[in-house]
Amino acid sequence: MLTTEQYFSSDLSQKDLDKAFNTIKQEKDLKEIGYYSLPDNQEKLIEKLYKLKNKVYKKYIKNIVVIGIGGSSLGTKAVSSLLKNKTTSCAPNLIFIENSDPIALNEATKDLKLEASLFVVISKSGSTIETISVFKYVISLFKKPIEDLTKNFVVITDRESALDKFAKEVEIKAYYLYPNVGGRFSVLSAVGLLPLVLAGFDIKKLLSGASKLCNDFFEKKEDRHNMMEKAYFYAKNRDEQNINVLFAYATEFDEFVKWYVQLWAESLGKISPSNGKVGLTPIGIIGSVDQHSFLQLIMEGPKDKTVTFIKVNDFEQNIKIPHIEIPHLEGTNFVNGKSFKELINAQCDSTLEGVRNAGVNTDLITLNKLDEYHIGYLIYYYEMLTSLAGYFLDVNTYDQPGVEVGKKILKTKF
Amino acid sequence: MLTTEQYFSSDLSQKDLDKAFNTIKQEKDLKEIGYYSLPDNQEKLIEKLYKLKNKVYKKYIKNIVVIGIGGSSLGTKAVSSLLKNKTTSCAPNLIFIENSDPIALNEATKDLKLEASLFVVISKSGSTIETISVFKYVISLFKKPIEDLTKNFVVITDRESALDKFAKEVEIKAYYLYPNVGGRFSVLSAVGLLPLVLAGFDIKKLLSGASKLCNDFFEKKEDRHNMMEKAYFYAKNRDEQNINVLFAYATEFDEFVKWYVQLWAESLGKISPSNGKVGLTPIGIIGSVDQHSFLQLIMEGPKDKTVTFIKVNDFEQNIKIPHIEIPHLEGTNFVNGKSFKELINAQCDSTLEGVRNAGVNTDLITLNKLDEYHIGYLIYYYEMLTSLAGYFLDVNTYDQPGVEVGKKILKTKF
Repeated sequence: MLTTEQYFSSDLSQKDLDKAFNTIKQEKDLKEIGYYSLPDNQEKLIEKLYKLKNKVYKKYIKNIVVIGIGGSSLGTKAVSSLLKNKTTSCAPNLIFIENSDPIALNEATKDLKLEASLFVVISKSGSTIETISVFKYVISLFKKPIEDLTKNFVVITDRESALDKFAKEVEIKAYYLYPNVGGRFSVLSAVGLLPLVLAGFDIKKLLSGASKLCNDFFEKKEDRHNMMEKAYFYAKNRDEQNINVLFAYATEFDEFVKWYVQLWAESLGKISPSNGKVGLTPIGIIGSVDQHSFLQLIMEGPKDKTVTFIKVNDFEQNIKIPHIEIPHLEGTNFVNGKSFKELINAQCDSTLEGVRNAGVNTDLITLNKLDEYHIGYLIYYYEMLTSLAGYFLDVNTYDQPGVEVGKKILKTKF
Repeated sequence: MLTTEQYFSSDLSQKDLDKAFNTIKQEKDLKEIGYYSLPDNQEKLIEKLYKLKNKVYKKYIKNIVVIGIGGSSLGTKAVSSLLKNKTTSCAPNLIFIENSDPIALNEATKDLKLEASLFVVISKSGSTIETISVFKYVISLFKKPIEDLTKNFVVITDRESALDKFAKEVEIKAYYLYPNVGGRFSVLSAVGLLPLVLAGFDIKKLLSGASKLCNDFFEKKEDRHNMMEKAYFYAKNRDEQNINVLFAYATEFDEFVKWYVQLWAESLGKISPSNGKVGLTPIGIIGSVDQHSFLQLIMEGPKDKTVTFIKVNDFEQNIKIPHIEIPHLEGTNFVNGKSFKELINAQCDSTLEGVRNAGVNTDLITLNKLDEYHIGYLIYYYEMLTSLAGYFLDVNTYDQPGVEVGKKILKTKF
């Protein structure tokens, strides 16, 4: 299972805790905010997706190519990177085309077998400029009219968006986001589930992990206290500790920390009616690699950061440091015969101890395994923590008005 | 060429500017700090490295595998990622094994053709626990005594380190760091040059780009003013703006921003004799992708950040957004017929304008091209900017005492 330990405490009163809980529960119950309900209300979609999988696999599709940016790609990248050890060799490759960068776009497409690829075009609004531009580019590569390509494309978008209307006209299969689920909270909707099931992951287990936290939080009082206190603590100390570092001890978290950065930054960086310009700055780093990079600043820099450590109890990969004694390097023999997972977890424990002793507010999340269930739980944990932090900061957690300015200016540049 | 524009100014007096310049110049002239001299003083090393390249290529080596972490890998990753468009198909693959993560280590080695690989073991101290543990693991994969493997390994380390002594004993070829060059300032020494030349990059041009900035800075007064003012401005405003964001508009900067994070965080996060605990927190993000992630926080969050934009004038990749008019998506036609490089650069300009208008202190670095020369210049720019910021913060820019604590605790865990 997943456990959390917090090495700080706050003065959150029972009354304020109850008030926060009731607000969040109301968001869920009134279906104002849709992500809360994703773990337990998508049986029909799941059935459809497994049917799609059967069809796709029969067509010898070798590549699932996600064309999407931001919330349309980050969650899927996070899950697939965490589970890269779990893919079977017969599953199609999962490829992402996100950026309007010409070199990256050319690299991603130049050797791609188009006919053996299913392109999943994802845009909540339906008109994201990067996504539609790449979509047009890929259409042009086929050198056929779009009407002849319907078996190589699906779209995921809001119902009645421009992209949906177009898809209907040319009979490209469309899947939908729920209107009350924002892009950065959409990984457990079709946005993440479709590419993930096609890439061979167990999406039912992913949802059941999320469902477990959902039920624990909303049903069992004792299980929500830590999360609420953490969110409150971060919000309350936002001026002194404006940076929340996530220090994850496994290379496989490289994309998950980017998902966290979007979720936290875009949800909480807002103008609050009561507090003015607020926000908390997320930073994602990887252990043990970033012990050789960012750690010095945490240890001796200003006390403007909190640090959450994540570790994995059982990597299910037991390769060991061999009993090789290298002359002159006897000082490294203390890890001989240990497994690499013992080494990396001991590094996590040691660094946590050092950082804690330096007076930094820290907590630890321990995942028993890197599998769909634990990752579903972890995703939902961070989504709910974000909702709670947004409540305590008094912001609208679910919009992103600040990014519209640049989009408007962009149109004047052509 | 590379140009910089700064949309802020400081009250740095001519006297303080001269004092800072003289300190930096003294560091260089007295050879206290060695990285300043790397661009122009390594003819012999370069000759050796090209000879090594000839030998390696004759042996049909297909993989250059860097075993190293932190300063031993980040710079090489940064350069090779920026230049991924420049590699020729006959050049060996460049592979990095950094972490003690068992899944990543297994993935990197399980299908590796050992006999066709040259392993470059890099550790300044010679006893980095991750690096030596991976080294032992790779030795064990060969299933031969190390004495029989000398053609598959080279080491890069400090002279007389434990690793050097061992290498001499078994006749593994060793290359050296200069004692006055720290790991995070070492990409233009053998640490970066050796793997980069073997992977087919033009290291002479890399050094000549760095040399250009070095000469301009130390010889021409007018060229150093902007850099010194920027470093001073960051140091002076460290309490209100404790976060320095680097927003690079090209996917190829993904590793460069990590190199920047190490350089900035580990150099500047220090206990200052005059200022106590100081530091500036680096964040690296990628455009246009992170317009859909971190940008909201920059726009509407607290004014605790500076933002440096980087863009590339000419990507030398001219693929275009085709003239395809998709029904219902007419709103995206304004970019039809434009090249993707025009789109990404217009996105950079628009976002910069929006961020500037929001009252955030910004500056812009424009690289004419992504080639060795410009990247060498950019690397040296950031190294010097770090030295200058360290001077103004009054810290020792070149040590990292804070990371020793965890290493000591680690030994008690076994």
